[in-house]
Amino acid sequence: MQWVKAYDGTVLTSDLLAAVIVTIMLIPQSLAYAMLAGLPAEVGLYASILPLVAYAIFGTSRTLAVGPVAVVSLMTASAIGQIAAEGTLDYLTAAIVLALLSGGMLVVMGIFRLGFLANFLSHPVISGFITASGLLIAAGQLRHILGVSGGGDTLPNILLSLSGQLGAVNSVTLAIGIGVLAFLYFARKYLKPLLVAMRVPVRLADMMAKAAPILAVAVTVALAAGLDLGARGVALVGAIPQGLPAFGAPALSLDLITALLMPAFLISVVGFVESVSVGQTLAAKRRQRIDPDQELIGLGAANIAAGLSSGYPVTGGFARSVVNFDAGAQTPAAGVFTAVGIALAALFLTPLLASLPQATLAATIIVAVLSLVDFGTVRRVFAYSKSDFAAMAATIIVTLGWGVELGIVAGVLLSLLLHLYRTSKPHVAIVGQVPGTEHYRNIERHSVLTRPEVLSIRVDESLYFANSRFLEDTIARHVAKQPDLEHVILMCSAVNAIDASALESLEEINRRLADAGIGFHLSEVKGPVMDRLKSTEFLEHLNGGVFLSQHEAVSALDRNCGIGRETPSQEPNEALKSGGPHKS
Amino acid sequence: MQWVKAYDGTVLTSDLLAAVIVTIMLIPQSLAYAMLAGLPAEVGLYASILPLVAYAIFGTSRTLAVGPVAVVSLMTASAIGQIAAEGTLDYLTAAIVLALLSGGMLVVMGIFRLGFLANFLSHPVISGFITASGLLIAAGQLRHILGVSGGGDTLPNILLSLSGQLGAVNSVTLAIGIGVLAFLYFARKYLKPLLVAMRVPVRLADMMAKAAPILAVAVTVALAAGLDLGARGVALVGAIPQGLPAFGAPALSLDLITALLMPAFLISVVGFVESVSVGQTLAAKRRQRIDPDQELIGLGAANIAAGLSSGYPVTGGFARSVVNFDAGAQTPAAGVFTAVGIALAALFLTPLLASLPQATLAATIIVAVLSLVDFGTVRRVFAYSKSDFAAMAATIIVTLGWGVELGIVAGVLLSLLLHLYRTSKPHVAIVGQVPGTEHYRNIERHSVLTRPEVLSIRVDESLYFANSRFLEDTIARHVAKQPDLEHVILMCSAVNAIDASALESLEEINRRLADAGIGFHLSEVKGPVMDRLKSTEFLEHLNGGVFLSQHEAVSALDRNCGIGRETPSQEPNEALKSGGPHKS
Repeated sequence: MQWVKAYDGTVLTSDLLAAVIVTIMLIPQSLAYAMLAGLPAEVGLYASILPLVAYAIFGTSRTLAVGPVAVVSLMTASAIGQIAAEGTLDYLTAAIVLALLSGGMLVVMGIFRLGFLANFLSHPVISGFITASGLLIAAGQLRHILGVSGGGDTLPNILLSLSGQLGAVNSVTLAIGIGVLAFLYFARKYLKPLLVAMRVPVRLADMMAKAAPILAVAVTVALAAGLDLGARGVALVGAIPQGLPAFGAPALSLDLITALLMPAFLISVVGFVESVSVGQTLAAKRRQRIDPDQELIGLGAANIAAGLSSGYPVTGGFARSVVNFDAGAQTPAAGVFTAVGIALAALFLTPLLASLPQATLAATIIVAVLSLVDFGTVRRVFAYSKSDFAAMAATIIVTLGWGVELGIVAGVLLSLLLHLYRTSKPHVAIVGQVPGTEHYRNIERHSVLTRPEVLSIRVDESLYFANSRFLEDTIARHVAKQPDLEHVILMCSAVNAIDASALESLEEINRRLADAGIGFHLSEVKGPVMDRLKSTEFLEHLNGGVFLSQHEAVSALDRNCGIGRETPSQEPNEALKSGGPHKS
Repeated sequence: MQWVKAYDGTVLTSDLLAAVIVTIMLIPQSLAYAMLAGLPAEVGLYASILPLVAYAIFGTSRTLAVGPVAVVSLMTASAIGQIAAEGTLDYLTAAIVLALLSGGMLVVMGIFRLGFLANFLSHPVISGFITASGLLIAAGQLRHILGVSGGGDTLPNILLSLSGQLGAVNSVTLAIGIGVLAFLYFARKYLKPLLVAMRVPVRLADMMAKAAPILAVAVTVALAAGLDLGARGVALVGAIPQGLPAFGAPALSLDLITALLMPAFLISVVGFVESVSVGQTLAAKRRQRIDPDQELIGLGAANIAAGLSSGYPVTGGFARSVVNFDAGAQTPAAGVFTAVGIALAALFLTPLLASLPQATLAATIIVAVLSLVDFGTVRRVFAYSKSDFAAMAATIIVTLGWGVELGIVAGVLLSLLLHLYRTSKPHVAIVGQVPGTEHYRNIERHSVLTRPEVLSIRVDESLYFANSRFLEDTIARHVAKQPDLEHVILMCSAVNAIDASALESLEEINRRLADAGIGFHLSEVKGPVMDRLKSTEFLEHLNGGVFLSQHEAVSALDRNCGIGRETPSQEPNEALKSGGPHKS
């Protein structure tokens, strides 16, 4: 919180302006995302007050805007929908407990520096998950646009539930929904250029375009109230309690906590990943840095604050943070000012919002989430890597067909398995000398020099249990092909580690080669790997030498050529010793 | 089956001799391991007839001796003990179905070349698992030595169950048990040297020592029959049906198959790993090779044969295969002759075996499995790698405390997680030029030349999702430390792959460095990695060049030093082009 000392009038003005804009954006969003999570509208507002203050104190990003976001709201609905029926007190309690649990987990992960866990969510899996979630959310909101009932956690269920309701469509609701959708789509796509063409300054035009949803809210509230649309079957948000949330912990039951542990963990990790990548991108633009482990604590504090003030899980939102940044927010104080803005809304605006059509909120959500759907990345990943694409496709299909939790788990597991499979069959190259240089390259890709007595083999992977038998097989295969062979040099430039299984395999290879009268040498062993090998008896057993470079190895064996098989096993060790302690 | 053509009298004699010795060894073992699996004694014999013939036809090892083995018998008992009570027909049916399922899985794995799955069992996990299984088996057999009832799948349960029975110890049984234990221990340790000292030829002495268990069987059968020990409370094997097993499939129920799927998979993988490592070791001694994928089919055929002839899961046994090899077995025909030997035993010896004390078999098992317990490897692994040791210790503790299935699963999962954790925080070195050479080495380990405008950074790991954010962080940290920096060179000599997540991170790093006016270059990119990068837009975006070697990169940037920031991004590409197509 160093920024507090340097705080002055200029910074205050910037922060205040940003806070006003974010507040205007956040009011409809917080109501909409609460609806998406199946929660009363005020819960969205509550989740946008205290959590923002907690993050301002404990977080490290200066511009991250914390609050309800679409994907986490969907995950919340999915998690608590399995425990209680929407609209019941149990459902609300479950949401609050979920926020507390998720907050607790994030803080614990921060304290134990477990932020690396988020690294196991690969980019294609996250991207696929967000795209699928966007589609799922948009489909789920269609019922509010059509004015019908329905539900479902998966795309087939949602569509099935909708298809049975098509006769019950409320035309007034549909008109409002389509009107707001069209307006928001127009605002997002054309309002800014139009305003700029009308000589409005670019930044102001941008902000005005971003404020379009609040305009849609105001207009539809006026329409609904003026024309008494509630009486014509248009679903309205209804009475929202006026005032600030009560502060306090909900009743905790062990059963509830157990049932929510896994969803809370998934929400924590997904929320953290989304938040940290926004935070890092924005920080880098101003040459600032964020500390991922401290971020965990900041987000954890925000979620605990949400749980203690009748809110639900929150995280740093992408669109809102970018707006905050662009609007000129300089310090986390902007977040505190936003919290004040939302608190004022909860105190004074709620009576007006009772007449807000749900279709307006649904349209807001649909326009927001469809911008998350990103088929361009799907295409790029497909072109670059089939295995990354497989993980991405699995994430999308399982998320759409079986829900968010299974989707993210399937994606992570598949990406891990594919990674392990790839490293279990590493790239292996037979190398030779590039003429006139000290470089050794793949014989299949370069015209290089080789000799029938020497096999130089480079394994392009760390040696560990999953590929150690592969290495045994590969060397045996190549040895069988080269009858004049006297020396095998294993070029270890790409070997970053050798685990106990691989060490066992190297011992075995050494034993087998020695039995066949073939020397076994290592070259370009990295420092940390060599340190490790020195602690074992392997180097004593080694029927050959260890060389600093591949060229030294080949030269040394060259000089000894024909002198006999025993010599190289001494000479290279001499060469090694005279070359000083082996390091690389 | 090329060996059939070259078959002649000499080979026949060798194979016959080996078969006689293995048969003598296998009779008590097959009875004992059936008892260990909780099955009637004859099931052990049945599992040692047809499976051996099937393996001789479909397997690739010339000397592997297939049949019941200790660890698989323990896993069988654990699996079917959860489904039916020992001694019931359902229990026997479950064992037969388990053999069929395991056989089917092995064949399928062989056809789809899934033998690599076994690679995920790291050496420390296998070794820990076998040690723990040995302890568990030995503890479980104590009740037969003491002549009490009892049971239990885990060490605490076994000991608890025994401790309640100490008052009921049968002293005659105990006398037989301790007698046989002492004799077998003596035979294993001192009989061979003693016989050699008595001028018996070494090989014969070895064989005689290996035949000690059959002697123990003969003597205790004679004692039990002669002194009517059954009447004195000594548990005997009892009547064994005389004759060959019926051939046919058991009644299969879907429930039973579902319940046995997971155990069958674990038994298949463990059995395959044990068998293949014995087979490879023996094959290498005679410069032969075995084909792991064909081995899967051979073992699968053996297990299907076991299931069709009232047997239970089998695999290649370590001790027995070594005996077969040492006794001079030349071809799989030795296995067929062994099968004939066991068939003869089933036809003619079974009436005699009715009087065999169970304590004799228990002593045979204990002496055999205690040789599997290997604390030396535990110590060596501890010294070499704490993370390998953690996986090993977890395997041992969970196997002893929670049973074989959880033990092996825990070991595999932990070793995978630790591997992923390690690669998610790779070793990173800042490198400089070794004076007077073209080599670049870690500045912390060598006295090397560096310059304040250039940061050369080598990442010793493939770049993939689990470490891509780590790379972003690391480069950002080093850049922040070097204010005069104009160029960052990422030395990719250890980068064997770049997945979609890492590509995204490289794009991000490039963007951030470009914003800061810093060039971003790659050196020593491997061929396959370069091919992949060329298919993307990354190289067009790259604010710098790609160099064949680190030295070329540093030299090129040297020449351009002071000319301005724009130059290097063109010049290196020129250098690259003039150097011909990039390959490494």
